[in-house]
Amino acid sequence: MSDIKLINIKESILKDNDNDAEFLRAKLARENVFMLNIMSSPGAGKTSLIIATLKVLQHKYRISVIEGDIDSMVDSEKIVQNGGHAVQIHTGGDCHLDAFMIKSAIDTINISDFDLLFIENVGNLVCPAEFDTGANLKVMILSVPEGDDKILKYPLMFQVCDALIINKIDCVKMFDFDFEALKNRAALVNPKMKLFEVSSKTMEGITEWSDWLSEQIDDYKSRLI
Amino acid sequence: MSDIKLINIKESILKDNDNDAEFLRAKLARENVFMLNIMSSPGAGKTSLIIATLKVLQHKYRISVIEGDIDSMVDSEKIVQNGGHAVQIHTGGDCHLDAFMIKSAIDTINISDFDLLFIENVGNLVCPAEFDTGANLKVMILSVPEGDDKILKYPLMFQVCDALIINKIDCVKMFDFDFEALKNRAALVNPKMKLFEVSSKTMEGITEWSDWLSEQIDDYKSRLI
Repeated sequence: MSDIKLINIKESILKDNDNDAEFLRAKLARENVFMLNIMSSPGAGKTSLIIATLKVLQHKYRISVIEGDIDSMVDSEKIVQNGGHAVQIHTGGDCHLDAFMIKSAIDTINISDFDLLFIENVGNLVCPAEFDTGANLKVMILSVPEGDDKILKYPLMFQVCDALIINKIDCVKMFDFDFEALKNRAALVNPKMKLFEVSSKTMEGITEWSDWLSEQIDDYKSRLI
Repeated sequence: MSDIKLINIKESILKDNDNDAEFLRAKLARENVFMLNIMSSPGAGKTSLIIATLKVLQHKYRISVIEGDIDSMVDSEKIVQNGGHAVQIHTGGDCHLDAFMIKSAIDTINISDFDLLFIENVGNLVCPAEFDTGANLKVMILSVPEGDDKILKYPLMFQVCDALIINKIDCVKMFDFDFEALKNRAALVNPKMKLFEVSSKTMEGITEWSDWLSEQIDDYKSRLI
């Protein structure tokens, strides 16, 4: 029995990825760089939120955005058009980003030119939740049109995130979205998760979110010294 | 060299699934049952579209809905509350439904009691596109709040579907959604894909979509005889 070697593919992939992620996090710490992994469904507003956040934080930090998509340059082009710096990853079919992909993206830039890296993950509430990218913080966006019941259906994503940003609150009148029900569900699955209500379109709530993010970055950097 | 056996896990999984799907499709043909696989991002309105379609088609067909979620009974409860029949699959973490899961769900019902099965896939624009569920028709829903650029980012999903339903058109004024740009992109990646513009909320366009679906079902059934 003891001579039989079992290769559990998924466990092995996740373990290798965890090692890559820890290695990458240590490298970023040495370089004094903070990295943020932003996840959501397709079309929940990851790119728009990043652009809105750039407007507030780009006077304070030197920022780059790592864009993950199966195909296209749409999002990285938007970032650049809005005055940001972007690196585009094409996963070629993969439904999530992993630490190796992020390391490959970071290897294309001069990391000492930046203080803060945003990762815009592939739009997906399932697989990205399982893969540590090496980021210091995980944030998910839920947009009002998606509905308030997503925690029940995609629990892992809500369990692993440090903050939940409810986006597109400017169109709340068009949709049946119960904020109290959502907050109660969030408190059950992840009581430590910080909640924000924003509209990247009107900029409502963007300052509160950016201030909190800035606190997390400054706290991280003060611990590195 | 010829003695070395290569096990390509992904190819093997997809091939096994394709065999299961063909087997299931043959079984449904023997039973004179039509099956439809509905896919979209989380919150694009799969359940609402199914309920709206039930209202139009339930006088003509005996219908059951196979609900696929990682967790929760939310969607199947909604179907039942609206007078429908539902079977809930919990994938336990998997980001898509496959033919084996659908066969397992069908094995719990008396298939001769039904003419039409809806599959509501896990909300995800990536992995569900790769797995044949044994359905006769693949339909995807794109909701207006998600934006008109999704074809560029998730091309496979748009390539494999027979119809694309643009949902939530009642709130089009709230969002920058370019219908012409979407149609041009759709024509490039999948010119045979049928397009519908609907609102499950106001029932706009639901008759056109249901009539077309009914034609596909009747055509399928006439070929079985």
